[in-house]
Amino acid sequence: MEIAKKSIKEHRKYRGKFEIHSKMPLQNKRHLSIAYTPGVGAVSSLVAKNPKYVWNVTAKQNMVAVVSDGSAVLGLGNIGPLGALPVMEGKAVLFKRFANIDAVPIVLATQDVDEIISAVKWIAPTFGGINLEDISAPRCFEIETRLIKELDIPVFHDDQHGTAIVVLAALFNALKVAGKNLGKIKIVISGAGAAGTAVAKLLIASGSKNILILDSQGIVAAGRKGLTLEKRELAHLTNRKNIQGDLTAALVGADVFIGVSKPGILKPEMIKTMAARPIIFALANPIPEIMPVDAKKAGAYVVATGRSDFPNQINNSLVFPGFFRGLLDGRIGKVTQGMKLNAASALAGLIKKPSREKILPGAFDKRTVPAIARAVIRSLGRSRS
Amino acid sequence: MEIAKKSIKEHRKYRGKFEIHSKMPLQNKRHLSIAYTPGVGAVSSLVAKNPKYVWNVTAKQNMVAVVSDGSAVLGLGNIGPLGALPVMEGKAVLFKRFANIDAVPIVLATQDVDEIISAVKWIAPTFGGINLEDISAPRCFEIETRLIKELDIPVFHDDQHGTAIVVLAALFNALKVAGKNLGKIKIVISGAGAAGTAVAKLLIASGSKNILILDSQGIVAAGRKGLTLEKRELAHLTNRKNIQGDLTAALVGADVFIGVSKPGILKPEMIKTMAARPIIFALANPIPEIMPVDAKKAGAYVVATGRSDFPNQINNSLVFPGFFRGLLDGRIGKVTQGMKLNAASALAGLIKKPSREKILPGAFDKRTVPAIARAVIRSLGRSRS
Repeated sequence: MEIAKKSIKEHRKYRGKFEIHSKMPLQNKRHLSIAYTPGVGAVSSLVAKNPKYVWNVTAKQNMVAVVSDGSAVLGLGNIGPLGALPVMEGKAVLFKRFANIDAVPIVLATQDVDEIISAVKWIAPTFGGINLEDISAPRCFEIETRLIKELDIPVFHDDQHGTAIVVLAALFNALKVAGKNLGKIKIVISGAGAAGTAVAKLLIASGSKNILILDSQGIVAAGRKGLTLEKRELAHLTNRKNIQGDLTAALVGADVFIGVSKPGILKPEMIKTMAARPIIFALANPIPEIMPVDAKKAGAYVVATGRSDFPNQINNSLVFPGFFRGLLDGRIGKVTQGMKLNAASALAGLIKKPSREKILPGAFDKRTVPAIARAVIRSLGRSRS
Repeated sequence: MEIAKKSIKEHRKYRGKFEIHSKMPLQNKRHLSIAYTPGVGAVSSLVAKNPKYVWNVTAKQNMVAVVSDGSAVLGLGNIGPLGALPVMEGKAVLFKRFANIDAVPIVLATQDVDEIISAVKWIAPTFGGINLEDISAPRCFEIETRLIKELDIPVFHDDQHGTAIVVLAALFNALKVAGKNLGKIKIVISGAGAAGTAVAKLLIASGSKNILILDSQGIVAAGRKGLTLEKRELAHLTNRKNIQGDLTAALVGADVFIGVSKPGILKPEMIKTMAARPIIFALANPIPEIMPVDAKKAGAYVVATGRSDFPNQINNSLVFPGFFRGLLDGRIGKVTQGMKLNAASALAGLIKKPSREKILPGAFDKRTVPAIARAVIRSLGRSRS
């Protein structure tokens, strides 16, 4: 059976994907009196007097809200909160499956930036962290920035930073395989939305010096008219020489192509103009910017996609479970760029001898979550010291 | 070990009370492709095109938000959202234990009426119903009324209506035992907050003709100064003769005392002035308006409390699981007074031969949830026909 039909059938059968369980026994009156009245009154009093105890006696310590307004869902675009709910439930159960984190999907009946920020602030006391998901750019930037400022629990927009971390990890190993040095290569990013922007910024933080980033209008350049505030900042960060042009022009002599954009836009001819041993990350989902077989025919040395049916899958789900495991276990209030860099290094480091067909761990590699969690917590120690 | 200490110890041990489980298997790549990408894309597309399918393919169909601002928690008062969280987690796991409903505690970092209404509206798409909890009167009345108007999922303030339904059910059977008729008796309600107000209104809907309700200032009467809008309405509904006075005065000749107020305020002398075979529901928790032994010594014929360690426990937890089971299974958008009356009758009807010591089913009686759920769904059929 085709995957789409099978998926709909299974979702009907299981009536959605997540459910609540009690962690405490509730089999008799004694149990009820401990978990609920009258015993719970003492627990509530304790927290009311010493709010920090909420981290010890409630589920907050392990609870993440997966928040979306449904404005930029997968390849589907702005399908609204109800359409987004199956994806957010999926995300929630992946949190549990991979990192034993309890995540609740919260889809919002508003797409107004201020209202989204208010909603998240008001529901925050229940949660130990906020995972923003599938919120369209540039709104996602302001929402994340303001929530980070206003909340005392960590806020992480996975489409930005989960993607940036896993891309950077993959790139570390791809460069090793191709014998290239991050500080010396030219990188072209296709797609200047949430993911592309975060990838560019994390690459810069990790030492990349030569990046061009493109949106549907071509290379993001200070000289272009009608740039948003965010893109002007990107132009300033990446393209000091104000180079203008299309993808074909951008790729001449490039070492790395990172696509977080649209199916089929990378042509074999373009790869042929790139530097020796070019690295191609074609991450558009489900149909990549170029199919791996075509990329290799054109001379690509390392090829990765977002798909599980090709080698070298680059997928956020390698990152967000371990990253939040670290945030929660370290009781970390703010995510830093250092945590992201350390997480990328830790993930890359799990592959001792990377090869052209193996630059990242598989989806079910049990080392991944603890390695990333440790890297996140370690970063905190450093920044505190 | 004392229950308070034991409860704190257990809450620490279990790290709070609820967790998330996946209902779909996630053991291999095939599973992931069905529960998450790429399969989930088809599920999201389906819902985006036909929003009603959200009820078939997501957990919304069985999901309730337990929402509180922590402004009126148990006997603890306004302890805020973090203090309220242990209670709301408890409520959530009772939903699962008794009615297999998946409930998520949502405690709010605001106590502003408009902001609470906005927060609940914005998060509503995830849920099949909203259980408001421990929100202080009179704010709770406006919040509930406006949310009922603005949402297409049911909104139920348990402190009001859960209490009213279980009290009415208990009263039906207590009157049977005492040989009294609801239409002919005098009822005194001590406490004019959320619970007392809802009890009064449901008693009137069920045919009670002679009710006095008291707050800390005495009988609620149109002639009293400084009444809130809600209490003026209460005075109009209950006390047409504008009787004024204190509890002692109110109880002379009364058949029934319903206390949802304060420990120890009902004195034996007062009971002695009541009608023959008086019925005493002393529901203040954990210390009732009068202890059962004292009430009986003073002549009370049927005595009930909110406590599990005395006979005749009157507790909301007999009602809300079955009530929401009915709302969800019937996919009911609005709660009606008829549903509440039917639920009370169904609950009372489970005790075929009520006695002075047995007017309600026990907490673990398996007939309760299905009986109330059926009564709720049946009411819908009637109101539609």
